[in-house]
Amino acid sequence: MNGLFVTIEGPDGAGKTSVLNELYPRLQLNAKRAIVRTREPGGVRISEKIREIILDPNYEEMDERTEALLYAAARRQHLVEVVLPALSQGKIVICDRFVDSSMAYQGAGRRIGMEGIASINDFATEKTTPDFTLYLDVDSDTGLHRIQQNRQFQPDRLEIEGLEFHQRVRHAYLKLAEENPLRIHKVDARMSLQDVVDASYSAIVEAYPTYFEE
Amino acid sequence: MNGLFVTIEGPDGAGKTSVLNELYPRLQLNAKRAIVRTREPGGVRISEKIREIILDPNYEEMDERTEALLYAAARRQHLVEVVLPALSQGKIVICDRFVDSSMAYQGAGRRIGMEGIASINDFATEKTTPDFTLYLDVDSDTGLHRIQQNRQFQPDRLEIEGLEFHQRVRHAYLKLAEENPLRIHKVDARMSLQDVVDASYSAIVEAYPTYFEE
Repeated sequence: MNGLFVTIEGPDGAGKTSVLNELYPRLQLNAKRAIVRTREPGGVRISEKIREIILDPNYEEMDERTEALLYAAARRQHLVEVVLPALSQGKIVICDRFVDSSMAYQGAGRRIGMEGIASINDFATEKTTPDFTLYLDVDSDTGLHRIQQNRQFQPDRLEIEGLEFHQRVRHAYLKLAEENPLRIHKVDARMSLQDVVDASYSAIVEAYPTYFEE
Repeated sequence: MNGLFVTIEGPDGAGKTSVLNELYPRLQLNAKRAIVRTREPGGVRISEKIREIILDPNYEEMDERTEALLYAAARRQHLVEVVLPALSQGKIVICDRFVDSSMAYQGAGRRIGMEGIASINDFATEKTTPDFTLYLDVDSDTGLHRIQQNRQFQPDRLEIEGLEFHQRVRHAYLKLAEENPLRIHKVDARMSLQDVVDASYSAIVEAYPTYFEE
């Protein structure tokens, strides 16, 4: 496994998708390796099927730990079918959300606790850790405001949660960034889209210069 | 929680279902508390949905750890919807298979390892442990022979596995019984059905005399 595993993380309203839509083509243009963009469930049929259960709004009785285990199961299958094969072929993998999201959303947001979420994800990933994680940081007020402004479609179950939930999520991300300074690179996502993309691009390329053209 | 949580375990061909079909009415007749017989997924719709994914023979690409996480998720939901509410009402719960099955089948049979299976099940159950576990022990030759003889219907994915798999499963059960002598009561399931039922009944009633009429 000599590929490069990059994940992108952030609370709702950080602008992850908009950033990736500009960042990815630039990375692709300058990558010296084959490069893949993915996100869970990533078209993997077992993971898609699992996500159907997680996201079905009819299942109001869904326990939080059931949900966390289902996320871990979907992650496992996507990892073994998409991420690990690409890495073992030496590719660069850009993955929208990974274990840090479960730590922040389930561990802190839903208050299950970091230790339990870490243990089921250690099992799911066999401790596969990203080489580099881009964390788009935004305060919860700004994040929620952006969601309310920009989304035409129905918010999902996690986005519906209140301000305190989102504050717990952000706080957990900041703590993870503090605890993993070599892996997690924080970018201030309140800047303009162009500035965020520029900062993100530079951070990745400077951390792994041999994978990209100068 | 002052109910009584009893699980019944054993490798394939131990005769679990036949034993339960005779044992349960006897327990029911003499129970001083309300008594419930259940098994995962136990009619819980989220767990049923998860089991559909696990058992679908089309999903040949299913990773073993994905499977183990899905079992843990289905267990969690059944536990919080069926087992825990009954126990908190003081009922006796007789559950066909629980965490020990995952330890034996996934941990040992599929060689994932006991530690990982224990950790995801600790998360799923928050360490809810049966008060009493009846382990029906049968050697793998006899067990497999019984399966081949008695089953008219299609064997499932785990039953199809070979002799070595079943030996690993039994060995794991024996080890669990050795490590948990106060909880796990071993009954020799090569005896006649009537003898197995008698021995099982006595074991439970003698361990928890206050829950049953003399």
